[in-house]
Amino acid sequence: MTVTPVKSQVFQGYVGKEKAFAKNGKGIFMTIEKNGKEYRDVIDAVSGAAVASLGWGDPDVPEIVSEALKKHTYSYPGLVANEAAEKLAKFYIDNSPPGAFASALWTCSGSESNENALKIIRQYWLEKGQPKKTKVISRECSYHGFTLGAISIGNTPRGAPFKDLMINQEEVCLKMPRCWPYRDMKEGETEEEYSQRLLDVLEKMILDNDPETVSAVIVETLPGSSIGTPVPSKGYLKGIRDLCNKYDVVFMLDEVMCGTGRANPNGKLNCWENFLAPEDGPDIQTVGKTLGSGYVTIAGVLISPKILDAYVNGSGLILGAQTYHSHAFNCGTALGIQQKILQNGLTKNVFENGNLLGKKLQEALLDDPNNFVGDVRGLGGFWTIEFVKDKKTKEPFPPEKKVGPRFSDIALENGFNIMGVSGADNYGGNWDIALFGPSFIITKEEVDLLVERVVSAVHALTKQLRAEA
Amino acid sequence: MTVTPVKSQVFQGYVGKEKAFAKNGKGIFMTIEKNGKEYRDVIDAVSGAAVASLGWGDPDVPEIVSEALKKHTYSYPGLVANEAAEKLAKFYIDNSPPGAFASALWTCSGSESNENALKIIRQYWLEKGQPKKTKVISRECSYHGFTLGAISIGNTPRGAPFKDLMINQEEVCLKMPRCWPYRDMKEGETEEEYSQRLLDVLEKMILDNDPETVSAVIVETLPGSSIGTPVPSKGYLKGIRDLCNKYDVVFMLDEVMCGTGRANPNGKLNCWENFLAPEDGPDIQTVGKTLGSGYVTIAGVLISPKILDAYVNGSGLILGAQTYHSHAFNCGTALGIQQKILQNGLTKNVFENGNLLGKKLQEALLDDPNNFVGDVRGLGGFWTIEFVKDKKTKEPFPPEKKVGPRFSDIALENGFNIMGVSGADNYGGNWDIALFGPSFIITKEEVDLLVERVVSAVHALTKQLRAEA
Repeated sequence: MTVTPVKSQVFQGYVGKEKAFAKNGKGIFMTIEKNGKEYRDVIDAVSGAAVASLGWGDPDVPEIVSEALKKHTYSYPGLVANEAAEKLAKFYIDNSPPGAFASALWTCSGSESNENALKIIRQYWLEKGQPKKTKVISRECSYHGFTLGAISIGNTPRGAPFKDLMINQEEVCLKMPRCWPYRDMKEGETEEEYSQRLLDVLEKMILDNDPETVSAVIVETLPGSSIGTPVPSKGYLKGIRDLCNKYDVVFMLDEVMCGTGRANPNGKLNCWENFLAPEDGPDIQTVGKTLGSGYVTIAGVLISPKILDAYVNGSGLILGAQTYHSHAFNCGTALGIQQKILQNGLTKNVFENGNLLGKKLQEALLDDPNNFVGDVRGLGGFWTIEFVKDKKTKEPFPPEKKVGPRFSDIALENGFNIMGVSGADNYGGNWDIALFGPSFIITKEEVDLLVERVVSAVHALTKQLRAEA
Repeated sequence: MTVTPVKSQVFQGYVGKEKAFAKNGKGIFMTIEKNGKEYRDVIDAVSGAAVASLGWGDPDVPEIVSEALKKHTYSYPGLVANEAAEKLAKFYIDNSPPGAFASALWTCSGSESNENALKIIRQYWLEKGQPKKTKVISRECSYHGFTLGAISIGNTPRGAPFKDLMINQEEVCLKMPRCWPYRDMKEGETEEEYSQRLLDVLEKMILDNDPETVSAVIVETLPGSSIGTPVPSKGYLKGIRDLCNKYDVVFMLDEVMCGTGRANPNGKLNCWENFLAPEDGPDIQTVGKTLGSGYVTIAGVLISPKILDAYVNGSGLILGAQTYHSHAFNCGTALGIQQKILQNGLTKNVFENGNLLGKKLQEALLDDPNNFVGDVRGLGGFWTIEFVKDKKTKEPFPPEKKVGPRFSDIALENGFNIMGVSGADNYGGNWDIALFGPSFIITKEEVDLLVERVVSAVHALTKQLRAEA
């Protein structure tokens, strides 16, 4: 067989093509090489993919890693446990609202966390003697990861080619509408009315599907790469919690991208603390990304007392485990990183400076009638610029213009890195967004520098798009 | 809500119960604390779960880790690549038979590798303009991981509770019989005849299901935790390769547990080199476990030139990526570990000393009419003892006796750690096995010591079971 000569042997992105490389970095800055050109002092405004909470080359991580490495090499977690996993579980539970969580499973990715959450929920109902509870309701336009179970509860164009490999979409993985005030709130509707409209749809879905067969409702607290950080409308999450209570359905939050300090108002971990009282927290929650700050590949599933109790008072046993569950080195490193983050007030820092970033971007971009910025939205360290062809009607650019990904290229030319996404729904809708999720260490001065560069990049995009019009 | 008081906050195994802990280790030895008792100098005869190829506390790993840590923190692999992932891909390709592989994707677990392989195969057929190819044929009693897609192509009691969350088992994830000479070869049948019988079933399945809709055949080269290292019968794997060629079906091997040096006859990486000529290798292959030796949580998907070509000559693009795909730190560490293993001839060592272990266990256990050892089988560094009630008829113990897991407990009392499994199939069959997969560093003297301890443990099990009879 003749092989096509290729410039990369890593099977992702543009297959076989030369890729943009991260050469090195320090703090929030990276050097990227792309098409033979070196881009220095690029602000990584999305910390990779809302991951690198401590930024590049943190001076304390080598010691944290070295200590974790000394303690444990490998044991199979289904049979022989390790202390680091216990300590990380205790840390997360202790730094969440009292009573919210009672146990944790550590996995290797957000996808794995959502896969395992689905299994944990399923076994929960078996433990409770309710085997008919199989249907999970998640949202249109949601992203929960890229393994097949995670794709099945998600709903994005990236997952669409794998339709034939999904879990049953008619009988098991049901979808309710997204919550996206900017695009879906009606003229004259209040936030509360919009929330109620969405909750009515959910309640009807539960009733139409027989509540005795509905297992869980799953939402991202603050959605990320799919529709770009729309803050849930007032009363929405509490309304879901109430419906879940009313119909005995598990309430699951996916905080893989928005959680673990990315957008917590109390200098702690969970994003839902912005919207829900401690007693209204989720029954099960997935986390990842910032947990290991990109240094190690760790994610997790947090278990409420309610779920734990059903297991302890039931069979008491989870059969099997993935090889790398509760990996001691990953857990030990993540614990050291999280301790540093909390001790240094970095989740507080990113909440404040992230909100400052959002406010400055709104001020600089929203009122300018000459650019194509339709919305700037987000919370804490998680923000989105949405580009539209018409700021008044919110009409998007045609999908083939790929404005989102193009803005990534323009951003790099202007000294920063973001995630530019062109999204689409099942009803012919499309949108272009640029996602911001900086490292938790970002300073006020760096926010100013970033805003300056973003404004330049938006001008450059405006120029490009006007020239094409 | 009142929470049941728990002794562990890690959500796996016996939930809430105190767990056996690995306290420390060195080389192939570990110290395990269980129910307040400390077990010292335990030989980890299964290196966790056939993972820790270098054993505990390898003296060179801290330097390898430290170097990998210096080079890269985090970039999102879908957009910004890293050198370590490229180097590890090149290493694996260069140390496989020429032409076997041309590209690689690095993931965080064997489960993720199999999930991604299913997606890669699906996109392969879309790239080739054959969207009807959706059906994958894997085997009864196989294990491919514990996420929902991986569970869907597997077939074990551990996965059974999640039936309602599986990919369609009637139309998409089909199952052919296992290949297990000890249990399934008929009296008087040759290995070749047995292989042909299995291949005839596969060919009939392909024909009955319309070859135009059959996408892939997926087998573990040497199955592990499910049925315990049955060496494929002569001609079996080559026969599958030929049928895949005949009907234009992707041939996929799962070498997560048996690959990456665990059982390679040439001092290299792939297990299939025992059974297949270089030109008969798989179209796609998953790996994991020993790749990072348990120090980092890494696994992979290896891509043949045939698959790569279809992408390069097709859309050329893989949309999306998991956050931790091609993770630079994991890849850099794994590369250093693999280089050490090959430079020190450790895959050769485990092939030879593993085979020695198998031979000595056979000699010590098979001919003794007083014990309950029905079979000792395996290859290289991957071996299994199967326990039976009747050595002549191969009748198993009743499943409720849980002989497999019980042997794990007895093993610990006798100074070694193995995986003891009670398995079951869909036809009322059951079995008890103990799985061995030592670190690649095991010496001849350590093999002798291990055999001595295994013989003692088998005697103890015999005594226990006879007392109950």
